[in-house]
Amino acid sequence: MGKAMIVIKESAMLKRGVRGGMRKRKEERKRVVILGGGFAGVYTAQYLERALGRRGDFEIVLVNKENYFVFQPMLAEVVSGAIGITDAVSPIRRLLPRTDLHVREIESVDLKKRTVTTAQGFQPHPHVLHYDHLVLALGSVTDFRGMRGLPEHALPFKNLGDALRIRNHVIHALEEAAVERDDVELRRRLLTFVVAGGGFSGVEVVAELNDFVREAARSYRHINPSEIRVVLLHAGERILPEVTERLGLFAQKILKKRGVEIRLKTRLAAATGNEVILQDGKRIGTRTLVSTIPSSPHPIIESLDLPRNKAGRLMANSFLEVEGAENVWALGDCAVVPLANGAGNSPPTAQHAIRQAKVAAHNIVTSIRVGIRGGERRAFDFKDLGKMGALGHRSAVAEIFGVPVSGYLAWLIWRAVYLMKLPGWGRRLKVAASWLLDLLLPTELVQLKLDDSEKLAKEHFEPGREVFCQGDLGDRVYIIVKGRAEVLREEQGRTIKLAELGPGEYFGEAAVLNNTTRNATVRCTEALDVLSVPKRQFMLMASALPSERQRFEEVMSQRASATTLALGQTV
Amino acid sequence: MGKAMIVIKESAMLKRGVRGGMRKRKEERKRVVILGGGFAGVYTAQYLERALGRRGDFEIVLVNKENYFVFQPMLAEVVSGAIGITDAVSPIRRLLPRTDLHVREIESVDLKKRTVTTAQGFQPHPHVLHYDHLVLALGSVTDFRGMRGLPEHALPFKNLGDALRIRNHVIHALEEAAVERDDVELRRRLLTFVVAGGGFSGVEVVAELNDFVREAARSYRHINPSEIRVVLLHAGERILPEVTERLGLFAQKILKKRGVEIRLKTRLAAATGNEVILQDGKRIGTRTLVSTIPSSPHPIIESLDLPRNKAGRLMANSFLEVEGAENVWALGDCAVVPLANGAGNSPPTAQHAIRQAKVAAHNIVTSIRVGIRGGERRAFDFKDLGKMGALGHRSAVAEIFGVPVSGYLAWLIWRAVYLMKLPGWGRRLKVAASWLLDLLLPTELVQLKLDDSEKLAKEHFEPGREVFCQGDLGDRVYIIVKGRAEVLREEQGRTIKLAELGPGEYFGEAAVLNNTTRNATVRCTEALDVLSVPKRQFMLMASALPSERQRFEEVMSQRASATTLALGQTV
Repeated sequence: MGKAMIVIKESAMLKRGVRGGMRKRKEERKRVVILGGGFAGVYTAQYLERALGRRGDFEIVLVNKENYFVFQPMLAEVVSGAIGITDAVSPIRRLLPRTDLHVREIESVDLKKRTVTTAQGFQPHPHVLHYDHLVLALGSVTDFRGMRGLPEHALPFKNLGDALRIRNHVIHALEEAAVERDDVELRRRLLTFVVAGGGFSGVEVVAELNDFVREAARSYRHINPSEIRVVLLHAGERILPEVTERLGLFAQKILKKRGVEIRLKTRLAAATGNEVILQDGKRIGTRTLVSTIPSSPHPIIESLDLPRNKAGRLMANSFLEVEGAENVWALGDCAVVPLANGAGNSPPTAQHAIRQAKVAAHNIVTSIRVGIRGGERRAFDFKDLGKMGALGHRSAVAEIFGVPVSGYLAWLIWRAVYLMKLPGWGRRLKVAASWLLDLLLPTELVQLKLDDSEKLAKEHFEPGREVFCQGDLGDRVYIIVKGRAEVLREEQGRTIKLAELGPGEYFGEAAVLNNTTRNATVRCTEALDVLSVPKRQFMLMASALPSERQRFEEVMSQRASATTLALGQTV
Repeated sequence: MGKAMIVIKESAMLKRGVRGGMRKRKEERKRVVILGGGFAGVYTAQYLERALGRRGDFEIVLVNKENYFVFQPMLAEVVSGAIGITDAVSPIRRLLPRTDLHVREIESVDLKKRTVTTAQGFQPHPHVLHYDHLVLALGSVTDFRGMRGLPEHALPFKNLGDALRIRNHVIHALEEAAVERDDVELRRRLLTFVVAGGGFSGVEVVAELNDFVREAARSYRHINPSEIRVVLLHAGERILPEVTERLGLFAQKILKKRGVEIRLKTRLAAATGNEVILQDGKRIGTRTLVSTIPSSPHPIIESLDLPRNKAGRLMANSFLEVEGAENVWALGDCAVVPLANGAGNSPPTAQHAIRQAKVAAHNIVTSIRVGIRGGERRAFDFKDLGKMGALGHRSAVAEIFGVPVSGYLAWLIWRAVYLMKLPGWGRRLKVAASWLLDLLLPTELVQLKLDDSEKLAKEHFEPGREVFCQGDLGDRVYIIVKGRAEVLREEQGRTIKLAELGPGEYFGEAAVLNNTTRNATVRCTEALDVLSVPKRQFMLMASALPSERQRFEEVMSQRASATTLALGQTV
């Protein structure tokens, strides 16, 4: 019985082989490895799946660190809660049933051996993937390196985690403002929200954030809507450089009407946990800075010995091949792709990425099936159909086939177009249901805590500012990485300088170890970078690091005697 | 004009004062502070708001660490994705418009000074709240203390964060199993899911988890459904001790039919990241352990000098007052409340908490309005209406007014009853929409990464097991807190013992610092507790802790020479 079954299956396979082109054995099949699961990567895999047909003469592997594809145009709506948390993303497995998905971080790429090493599992076994064709579609990341205080304090806006983090941070600020009723300065900082970058991404975030915070504040008895300030910083002369001047100005008018303060020709210089510092030296007190700029290609791109432009993007030719490399393809935001008629380079938009994916998939299949009947290689050529950006609250701007549309009509078009562009009917239904419920129900206020406060993190402080004040609760220990600070105690009306601290030195351990409030104020004398260690993490470290524990104890006893001397009495 | 307005307002207030009982000035108003935002706390506030009426003779403050109320009976559905992530919770602000909500951690309670200190803001200012009446409704927490390896490796199931964490952990395991095709042992561990505790909570989780993982696995090309194993551990003779034997056995039958392996009379002894160890010495290889047991009252309860029973719950009288304390009330899962007719104590269920809340609110108002027209104090008395538990996938068990119901009918009753019990029409609409979409659409596969892997964490290993193996990727450094381990290297076919390590010693730093794979295997010679420091956090620590960096370097050079000696050659 079992044997007969096998025979039948084999002959069926043979027939299929004869009909649809011989099904190759596993070892002979070429492997296309795609790195990145954004528009460029997912659509390349989708076009490859279509070309695969019944032949099965190659296999497709896609490596992405998340198991979902982010539909970027709707991500800002996650911030406001207009759509459900998972509505803006689609599980890649469902989109690509014939692709082998590896949800992993990429450790390294070896172009000579033609391998990609991935890792990040429950078990750190390295996993080496051999490839015949490599597709680099890693997109871009928001890159705060080299900007004072931004890596520590600015919130990026790229993926689902970022959108949730922004949302929760904003709710946290509202909750705190509802409790802190007396400290006017702190309330002002809590209720000021700053977004940097006036492109589509920044404008969509500021619009949704503004809608959300003003709507949500109504549920807070102790917040007056007039206290809320939402600021958009933009380096250019007007926002939305992607569209015509008329639409850009329209967007500015709408945002202003809704209460967004727009600061043009303004650049960020630095940020701390308490304020944003502009290049003209002005400061805006805020606890919330979202920054959509600057962006740079994925770090793994930097590690490859491939031609790149100044911005670090890979130089591809119009066939989407990386110049000078064999069987390495690059597309999407991490690549520079020339437009066919010499009209410059392809802009980093989803529409272009999708068209590039189609061409890349065709050309890859052509090279795999060379000599069989793969057809001719194609060059990339595409003129975009339009541009759209939502301004929240039933308004948008759009340019469709060059025709400018704005306001409610543009918003309806925006929703209709993006709803249909969402991959999969299930997702469309969910988003449509969410939109409907959003019209009927009040703003969602639930804060999903992500436990970020429990991590070791760097913090940046500007000269003259306090890290903490005498009498504050001791919830963390600080270790100075760079800069200097002084320890001041107020006692019987006098201010006494207890110590001056520099790199490698600790402070704040006394309150944490003794479970009391801070017994002194620490003020920066220079710009200060510290490693901030939350109480629980510090306790873990202290229990495991005997040498550090010894150092704490030494430091504490030294400080105690310094205090005694300074105060001229036993404390 | 301005002055006239004020006069009018004052006279209007005066009139209202005459009609509805004189509105007290702020200082004179009594303050009721409620700690905890579960059923007990939220319903107490709600009944107090109703009693407040127009009088305004007291104010209500509720302190909770989340800004939402968790509707526990639906939380398990978040694990399976049958409802949206935020559907099982309600923002407390919306439920309690006249209550002052403080979203804060409770630092301490001072019963003598009648104050509650809270903290956890962007700024660590302590916030001291004075109270006239204190309501302790802090519920219970899952408490793994004293259980070997459980604090490190078991996932609790109490709040929204826990439900999401379980869901993401399970998806992570599926993703890893989809990549790890050759290591049979690892695959088995990845695809085995263990839930400990066969009460309502454990049964609901195991049912939803089982449904989810079996349904989701269909989207994974490289996972065979027969590889999946879901195990429920229960200490008693049958699951669901809360209901009659007949229903308990029915639930067992249903779960078994769906593929859940039930192990009765079985207790957990220990857990590691790789396996669960039972009290009879048997082991189950698994990467996923969810435990709903044991539970104990909130830690702040322990810190109070109030009468408690052996399990740590506060002793309240039938008026819900804590024995021997004045104006301190206790109810819900953190309290022992006697039933009126001497029929034992009130069980820890939502129904009882709600009825207790009604009585507590009445008695608090009575004491505030003593001598006015507050009425008589009431004693708590309640017989519950029924018990219900969902078994996932259109089946449930219920006991309603003592009548047992099971199967599809019980499931329909379950859904109808809990939908109507959900607070607020908005939430009901959302849940109904989610349920509808869940019937139409495939299981949601999106993994919302919560960045937990980036934290310092403790890990537990059993004797004879490897922490890591030679050739693994070096993604973290370990510091021994307790126990011993040996460092072994395989070289030219020989296994050489390089070192033996004990408390306070590091290992694994070489691979992390040099960005290579592990050059040796570390195996435990005793049960081992380590602090596991992820790469990024380790780099932050190394940059900030010069003394530790120096120690690393010393250790590394010592180990290098030890290796040279052991191998008799230069490495």
